Amino acid sequence: MPVANFDQLHAASKPSLDPLVRLLAGDLERVNRLIVERMQSPVALIPQLAGHIVAGGGKRLRPMLTLGCARLCGYHGDRHVALAAAVEFIHTATLLHDDVVDASDLRRGRDTANAVWGNKPAVLVGDFLFSRAFELMVADGSLRVLEILSRASAVIAEGEVMQLMTTGNTATTEAEYLAVIQSKTAELFAAASRIGAVLTRRSIHEEEALDQFGRNLGTAFQLVDDMLDFSAREAELGKSVGDDFRDGKMTLPVLLALSRGNDEERVFWRRTLEELDQRPGDLERAIELVERRGAIAETLMRARGYAAAAARALAPFADGPERRALVAAAAFAGDRSF
Amino acid sequence: MPVANFDQLHAASKPSLDPLVRLLAGDLERVNRLIVERMQSPVALIPQLAGHIVAGGGKRLRPMLTLGCARLCGYHGDRHVALAAAVEFIHTATLLHDDVVDASDLRRGRDTANAVWGNKPAVLVGDFLFSRAFELMVADGSLRVLEILSRASAVIAEGEVMQLMTTGNTATTEAEYLAVIQSKTAELFAAASRIGAVLTRRSIHEEEALDQFGRNLGTAFQLVDDMLDFSAREAELGKSVGDDFRDGKMTLPVLLALSRGNDEERVFWRRTLEELDQRPGDLERAIELVERRGAIAETLMRARGYAAAAARALAPFADGPERRALVAAAAFAGDRSF
Repeated sequence: MPVANFDQLHAASKPSLDPLVRLLAGDLERVNRLIVERMQSPVALIPQLAGHIVAGGGKRLRPMLTLGCARLCGYHGDRHVALAAAVEFIHTATLLHDDVVDASDLRRGRDTANAVWGNKPAVLVGDFLFSRAFELMVADGSLRVLEILSRASAVIAEGEVMQLMTTGNTATTEAEYLAVIQSKTAELFAAASRIGAVLTRRSIHEEEALDQFGRNLGTAFQLVDDMLDFSAREAELGKSVGDDFRDGKMTLPVLLALSRGNDEERVFWRRTLEELDQRPGDLERAIELVERRGAIAETLMRARGYAAAAARALAPFADGPERRALVAAAAFAGDRSF
Repeated sequence: MPVANFDQLHAASKPSLDPLVRLLAGDLERVNRLIVERMQSPVALIPQLAGHIVAGGGKRLRPMLTLGCARLCGYHGDRHVALAAAVEFIHTATLLHDDVVDASDLRRGRDTANAVWGNKPAVLVGDFLFSRAFELMVADGSLRVLEILSRASAVIAEGEVMQLMTTGNTATTEAEYLAVIQSKTAELFAAASRIGAVLTRRSIHEEEALDQFGRNLGTAFQLVDDMLDFSAREAELGKSVGDDFRDGKMTLPVLLALSRGNDEERVFWRRTLEELDQRPGDLERAIELVERRGAIAETLMRARGYAAAAARALAPFADGPERRALVAAAAFAGDRSF
């Protein structure tokens, strides 16, 4: 199928996770059961704390990519369930570790596992889940899958450290920001998707195509995530906004507003993000500025570009409900409001 | 060799790491080079922070067990070097995560990576090293080794969480304390040693023997560690003592002093460890009490018992410089002052 037609298909596709969720309902149910089973431990705090975050009802986007890409490649076995659970455990461990706070961050009153149980239990339970992820992969027995996910885990940690380095630094470039989100977010989406081709012993070209699909989808997902943190509409709906702003994170909406802003605006961004000197009304002003400078629209446009690239990466695969569901999921990643 | 004779051999063995260090000098040098090589990253903070702890010059006891047990089994290849480095990376990651502090712990002014760089970078660099450990194992290609070390990592995390649960709880039993140190410490020593038999495809009996060797050695090591934290002699030498006391950790010296103490002493332990209400002179009093109640001597006696059991576990292996060096290392674990 020519690329132009594929873009039309993508453009016509309704951004939604629903087709993928419907297609994978049985598999997802098994993944969820396995997750609950494998987070058990005689040490009661572990399932308690893990349950708070694992059963907390995320979208299960990453494991769905493993399941969906395996199906796209015609997989009919059982192994994708355990590997999808491993992917979700790695994601959960990084969430727990990402929420570690230093004393200076205590102003944040979020309902994270770390806030409820303290940093240390959250870190250790993250380690437990990370180890469980590797136990699941070892039981599966594919060294190739182990290679892909151990490599991805190292890259995620690098991305998280890079993000710390850029936090509060208004001289951060767009290229640096992109490197951060490619590593901390897109890498796991890429690995989760690639596994589908590994399971079915597809060619390296098909592996690479699924990697590109996941990588672009993950980038789109993170861009929208960063955009939603400044969304006036989210704020109106009573949803949580401004977490990144309070942390001094240099995300694309901020970088764009900074480069397009006037001197007075740059003074505002430096005070609030570099010095973390934030006063009542500052978040509202930040939301207003990213909107006024077109940074929300531009971030969303770029996210849609990555979503389209994700869809295009699936061109080598045969059309069918699996591919259509994955294309709709990519469109969702670039065009979602939650 | 009859067990009685083996005990005599062990009793005659001078407690020392030197024979093992001499025997493994070349291998250890290669492990150290590999460690430095594999902790590199384009993200500069990672090698900086990792170098602080990895190159900080620990005893490299765990990787030495992998190297030494491989040699004991007659191994002459290269694989033990990478696996020893993986074992040290797992240990380093747990150290970094073990030092995570909550805001309430800031009274501790230790020169940990966490104190210098903050919790979050230390946690993320720990994740990076943990991932690197798995990358090294995957490159080695043994699913059995991956199984042993992923399982050990989960058990370590369980042990660390168990320890949190007993901290500040003066009702902790000796059995609970033993379960904690078996999991958080001895498990990795057992896994590190067992790998030697896996590399050389020895029988499951020999694998189990090396597991028992490492497990008993690790238990002895942790008992002495917990004893040294209350050592008056260490305090005189200007070395760090009292870290566990300040944390409210329920270690064997405390449990013994508690059960052997009078009512007034129990009030003291409850105030200092349960309520963490510690005043000037309290650490000195704690050191005096564990000494007076014979808790130091008893802890040391038990450590020597585990060290002897470690040595006995090597009975199935042929006598030679390797076995003698490992026996001396076991004796050292139960009778060291650093």
